[in-house]
Amino acid sequence: MITLDDVRALDASDPLAEFRQRFLVPPGVIYLDGNSLGALPASVPGRMDHMIRQEWGVDLIRSWNSNDWINAPRRLGAKIASLIGAKANEVIAGESTSVSIFKALTSCLQLTSERSVILSEFGNFPTDAYMMEGLAALSGGRIRQSLVASEDIESALTTDVAALLLTHTHYKSGRLHDMADLTAKAQAKGIPVIWDLSHSAGALPVDLNGCNADFAVGCGYKYLNGGPGAPAFLFVAERHHDKVMPVLSGWLGHARPFEFRDEYEPAAGIDRFQCGTPAILGMAALECGLDIMLEADMASIRAKSSALGDLFIDLVESRLDGFELRSPRDATRRGSQVSIAHKDGYAIMQALIEQGVIGDFRAPDILRFGFTPLYVGYEDVWKAVDTLAAIMRTDVWRDERFSIRGAVT
Amino acid sequence: MITLDDVRALDASDPLAEFRQRFLVPPGVIYLDGNSLGALPASVPGRMDHMIRQEWGVDLIRSWNSNDWINAPRRLGAKIASLIGAKANEVIAGESTSVSIFKALTSCLQLTSERSVILSEFGNFPTDAYMMEGLAALSGGRIRQSLVASEDIESALTTDVAALLLTHTHYKSGRLHDMADLTAKAQAKGIPVIWDLSHSAGALPVDLNGCNADFAVGCGYKYLNGGPGAPAFLFVAERHHDKVMPVLSGWLGHARPFEFRDEYEPAAGIDRFQCGTPAILGMAALECGLDIMLEADMASIRAKSSALGDLFIDLVESRLDGFELRSPRDATRRGSQVSIAHKDGYAIMQALIEQGVIGDFRAPDILRFGFTPLYVGYEDVWKAVDTLAAIMRTDVWRDERFSIRGAVT
Repeated sequence: MITLDDVRALDASDPLAEFRQRFLVPPGVIYLDGNSLGALPASVPGRMDHMIRQEWGVDLIRSWNSNDWINAPRRLGAKIASLIGAKANEVIAGESTSVSIFKALTSCLQLTSERSVILSEFGNFPTDAYMMEGLAALSGGRIRQSLVASEDIESALTTDVAALLLTHTHYKSGRLHDMADLTAKAQAKGIPVIWDLSHSAGALPVDLNGCNADFAVGCGYKYLNGGPGAPAFLFVAERHHDKVMPVLSGWLGHARPFEFRDEYEPAAGIDRFQCGTPAILGMAALECGLDIMLEADMASIRAKSSALGDLFIDLVESRLDGFELRSPRDATRRGSQVSIAHKDGYAIMQALIEQGVIGDFRAPDILRFGFTPLYVGYEDVWKAVDTLAAIMRTDVWRDERFSIRGAVT
Repeated sequence: MITLDDVRALDASDPLAEFRQRFLVPPGVIYLDGNSLGALPASVPGRMDHMIRQEWGVDLIRSWNSNDWINAPRRLGAKIASLIGAKANEVIAGESTSVSIFKALTSCLQLTSERSVILSEFGNFPTDAYMMEGLAALSGGRIRQSLVASEDIESALTTDVAALLLTHTHYKSGRLHDMADLTAKAQAKGIPVIWDLSHSAGALPVDLNGCNADFAVGCGYKYLNGGPGAPAFLFVAERHHDKVMPVLSGWLGHARPFEFRDEYEPAAGIDRFQCGTPAILGMAALECGLDIMLEADMASIRAKSSALGDLFIDLVESRLDGFELRSPRDATRRGSQVSIAHKDGYAIMQALIEQGVIGDFRAPDILRFGFTPLYVGYEDVWKAVDTLAAIMRTDVWRDERFSIRGAVT
């Protein structure tokens, strides 16, 4: 049996331990939901106060130049690029993940103009599938969405497929797709691939260019710690930049936006994929999260994340009955989270949260735990399972108050 | 000649004077660019610090329920609705104006499925035209964008037009379109109208339902004082809600987003027009701006805005040579800004800004001055023109440093 002393020894030799103080995790809380909303970087309150009082309040409109607001999407894009194996000029920050997916899908259609199928898998994160569905409906029948089972993806890679959209780390199970292998297999049939990195960026090493990736999107508010509803990002491989005329051709993607011309002329490179005015407040918070991430070694993050997940699985299996592992046991095939299933998962998770152990629930029966190595330690994992064991032993989760659902569950 | 004493008397009897203290306008600055970026509401720094430290930092993921983040787009939408003559359930906050335009355009196409032309005017704000252009390109020839001169709009309202997109208050000249008249004329030909209210919302009374409007979009960071890159808004008349299947069908527009189903099922009402996860930090700042606006009387705002613009025009014409008025002289046909043209407008505006009088420049020759009645007074206008007169008298604007352009001009 793994003891508290064992895990404390692991924390004592953790090369990432110092990063804990870079986040303001509240006392008494074990936060295992950084895969949904990353914790607050300690640098954010001060940065935001300066952004608001000085840059907005005093410098006002001049800040677009003097505080370089205009380059925030590019600057943050370059920082994200270094986390996902991309070149600095291949990533732009902004908009939501959903809108970024639409940008990528409509770009693929231009690269594969005779093709009619946009392909994904059942059980992908819903917004990926829904954005495909909306685009197919708009096409009036020319484009068809196809969802297949995970094991049927390879056989569905036919020459009528215009785009393959996959999430690298599955939001529920944490299962990893083999990015290099699937990208190569799709490209062998002339299919560009869009990788949704929402649960990968900042969580594990990603090598987009090493995989010859075409497009990628991702989320700023999970492992990048950018705050609620943070700007998303879009990666477009440099070789595609000038072949695509953006469909969401907003004014900031124009070659010379401040000439205010009637005709759209796309900017060179990744800039053309900008659309509306960037959310500057959100950009400032996200940049704080990125700056911490850039100081950490991604191999260390990955090693600790795997070890935390393995520890969690070991402890759950040795101390609890009635839970079923829904994530890959092999850490090399798993992202930075572990999901376990229980038919009363909703109430059990609410009871856990009341005890200060914060994970989340995903319908119909998944308890999901994210392990974010920069602010979660081995003792946290031990205590989380210990708390879960106590909840199950005492049946406290059966109390009626834990079955009342909020709008967000 | 209007004297400093005259304008001080006007300020002394200004019913909106008390609102000045609700904004943190820096000392020594006369801010006449609220039409581009609204000033900082005094309530924002405290609200944002609480949002960041408590809601994000301590309450973390629970805030979606406990701090009602999930309803921010609806709640802010309802507040905006009351400023633009809409019902609370007809407006949703979120995304950018550009993306909102795309949502509205693709909705119109569904209401007019046999029609092929999307119509606007030359010189509209570029993103409006560019978003149309992108949609037309995506359609592969089925949809055609048409831009006509302002005076030709009525004759272009033919039965092949699927959507008319107009900006209510022109971004350069401040000229107002007659919303009721143009809406009626378009609808008589079966054409739904999209009104871009970016320079109208919060600046003057707008009565969308009184005009039987179909769609509207607008910007949060101008007269609504929501901060740089604030969330935008989308109005959809209730009668259209259930006839439209959103094209940007993101997960938060789903009827039951937290069931994570593979198939999109639109939420009832305005909620279906949500797309990605809302920018919560931006929403919090925007709500501060809206709450101030809701306390002010829109008729008083309009009366003062007209008087400030009239005063500016009178002073410019009596004290300056070489400038040409590019806004309607009749305040009832003008929004809350006045533009004057000068061939050396760029350098003159830079010299003005250095003196603390902040307006902006719009190519090729426009000096644009916004009059935001909640934090600009009559004396401010007098001093702004006095400063401009001094700059012209001394030729200081000819100094080389004023001709160096920033990225944003």
